[in-house]
Amino acid sequence: MLIFVAIELSTMVANLQEHFSDSAHNMKSSAIRELLKVSQQPEIISFAGGLPAPDLFPVGILKKLAMEALETDSALALQYGPTEGDKRLREIIVERYRREGVAAEVKNVIITTASQQCIDIVAKLFLNPGDTVVCELPSYLAALQSFASYRANMVGVRHKRDLDNVVGKLVAEGRKPKFIYVIPDFQNPSGATLSLDERKMVLDVARRHDVLVVEDTPYRELRFEGETLPALCQLDGTGQVITLGTFSKIFVPGFRLGWLLAHEDIITKAIVAKQAMDLCSPVFDQKITARFFDQNYFEENLKKIIAAYREKRDGMLAAFEKYMPEGVTWTRPQGGLFLFLTLPEALDAKDLFDLAIKENVAFVLGEAFHCDGSGKNTLRINFSYMSSALNEEGVKRLAKAIRQLMGNATN
Amino acid sequence: MLIFVAIELSTMVANLQEHFSDSAHNMKSSAIRELLKVSQQPEIISFAGGLPAPDLFPVGILKKLAMEALETDSALALQYGPTEGDKRLREIIVERYRREGVAAEVKNVIITTASQQCIDIVAKLFLNPGDTVVCELPSYLAALQSFASYRANMVGVRHKRDLDNVVGKLVAEGRKPKFIYVIPDFQNPSGATLSLDERKMVLDVARRHDVLVVEDTPYRELRFEGETLPALCQLDGTGQVITLGTFSKIFVPGFRLGWLLAHEDIITKAIVAKQAMDLCSPVFDQKITARFFDQNYFEENLKKIIAAYREKRDGMLAAFEKYMPEGVTWTRPQGGLFLFLTLPEALDAKDLFDLAIKENVAFVLGEAFHCDGSGKNTLRINFSYMSSALNEEGVKRLAKAIRQLMGNATN
Repeated sequence: MLIFVAIELSTMVANLQEHFSDSAHNMKSSAIRELLKVSQQPEIISFAGGLPAPDLFPVGILKKLAMEALETDSALALQYGPTEGDKRLREIIVERYRREGVAAEVKNVIITTASQQCIDIVAKLFLNPGDTVVCELPSYLAALQSFASYRANMVGVRHKRDLDNVVGKLVAEGRKPKFIYVIPDFQNPSGATLSLDERKMVLDVARRHDVLVVEDTPYRELRFEGETLPALCQLDGTGQVITLGTFSKIFVPGFRLGWLLAHEDIITKAIVAKQAMDLCSPVFDQKITARFFDQNYFEENLKKIIAAYREKRDGMLAAFEKYMPEGVTWTRPQGGLFLFLTLPEALDAKDLFDLAIKENVAFVLGEAFHCDGSGKNTLRINFSYMSSALNEEGVKRLAKAIRQLMGNATN
Repeated sequence: MLIFVAIELSTMVANLQEHFSDSAHNMKSSAIRELLKVSQQPEIISFAGGLPAPDLFPVGILKKLAMEALETDSALALQYGPTEGDKRLREIIVERYRREGVAAEVKNVIITTASQQCIDIVAKLFLNPGDTVVCELPSYLAALQSFASYRANMVGVRHKRDLDNVVGKLVAEGRKPKFIYVIPDFQNPSGATLSLDERKMVLDVARRHDVLVVEDTPYRELRFEGETLPALCQLDGTGQVITLGTFSKIFVPGFRLGWLLAHEDIITKAIVAKQAMDLCSPVFDQKITARFFDQNYFEENLKKIIAAYREKRDGMLAAFEKYMPEGVTWTRPQGGLFLFLTLPEALDAKDLFDLAIKENVAFVLGEAFHCDGSGKNTLRINFSYMSSALNEEGVKRLAKAIRQLMGNATN
């Protein structure tokens, strides 16, 4: 055995910055990431994350299924798996889409390391540096970060009615967008849902301008009330829609599993891209997940999640009504994990954050979700993670901080 | 419930090709991938993959540990985890490096979705389109594919003694490489190991030319004989080495877990990059893996793997001696999963492949591992996956196919 002098890894490379790629220079640790650190202190009621409630994880069933997978299938469950994913799990996803009227086949589906990897794959397949992506104002922060890491330019659309104009103008300027990125159901962060007419309009705009649509559907099955609206892939007739899905919110996030549904030529490319990204997604977790569906645990578990989140949302909305001062408005999501709060225009949520932390309550700045730097007076509020009692207490504290901010503003 | 007419997802987008990025246009399904499909037919003895032996997976222990993780830690094990990885698992990796004399700290380590993601992260952090990477001839195919997907140019080095000249020439031409990619121990595909002098030389060249070194170490701990040589990170004194590690070959591949060890400024960037790639690696699997080390199962299990693979390698080498015709040469690896076979110069392994498949034995073309298109008369042979009996039978069949090819060549 050779013995070495301890090498100090933290010795600085002379000029590390010069070695980094343009993409790396573009990367910034998100404001959210830094703020989340503050919000993780135990005394703080945090509305900042986007975490499912851990008491809804089907632990007992997972024990049984993990045992079964290891007892009957260990040689495959612990081995490398196919890049495109476990065949049975792909079939399960296909069956679910077919029940919704989408003539999907296994060749239209790739299993991914959750929907963040779907975003990475889509960005890699379609974005050259300088390309344009049209997204909603606000939109999912980690998607915006991913597109930025591919050095794309984001153009935000505030109102869906402006979409045609925005895309048309970009096309006229020679900046035809590569795709429109949209979260149709219970959007992160706004909680908003596209109407059927808006969905048809997005597809119509995409078709007329020959632009792809990337539909992100992490919350789609978490509907508390009202009629389920068709996913864009259900309305698509041209293969123009790429649908991203994940098991994180409707099952467990710790398995890191999602899927991409698209035209087979896109899936073929996605498989090659994924091969260079991580070879295959966690195999043991895929085997357990397939069993969870095959033994019919999924629907019942989903009902439990929906019921629990509906109750939390109701409690959250009631607390807002009760505590929030005049001038503050918020969305009333029909599903999902988030609602969005708007302060009077003159106020800055950054100032509120400091006051809120003093009151031991945390949220995420809405500004982070706006690719154009707007939304300074907005906040994203998660209601899925904390208990209903803590949610109410948190709203009370947040309202107190807002009143302080309003007082400061009028002084 | 709305009912929709089944939508045919396979309808073709008019001009899908025009939508793809330059990176996507560069992607090709690898020759290996296509060949592997052929080699998966049950009657075929396959030396083509790089799979661990499934009978060495510690199934009984994993059952116990999966149970424990779910019983005592489910709220964290099934939840989203930190992007940088499970804290305890990072500590375990750090402790292992410190025992080898590397003054690593937790801030020097990020957990990844196995070492393929390490490669993706490194490529993303350092490669602009057109950048140069220096790699070995031959080298790991999926690394070459990843670098290609970032549109880098690979320059291969056949003999380590040429490294200084190659790098010096590139620097003089204004094409200074971003990094040297090297697999020091039991290389994939060659099975070769760098001597201590060669290791020092690689570092010396890198330092003098101010180039980073990416050291990939998937097989490092699978040494069958001889003295362990220091990893490059053990010899580094400048923070110039980035070390990639994986649990795939020394534990199980199905969990998809690896790590990256580097200067903390690189790890900080790597965390931001990974956040946009998949948010975090499989959490449940990380919890089980940490327990596997903490309950001291790792070393004993590793010894079992090494003993089994040593026996398989010995059997393989004996079979080669016994069956191979004159003119065929092969490497004698001191560890790892692969050995490399060279046919007489005039023969093409592609022609051999067809003959071999008729004999129901498969391998991978060595050419695929050569970034300069050379190596047409070489084959990669895996010896870890099949039983020793099948390994011998496979070599017998392969030798028969080679004799046929030689016969054809002389006719």
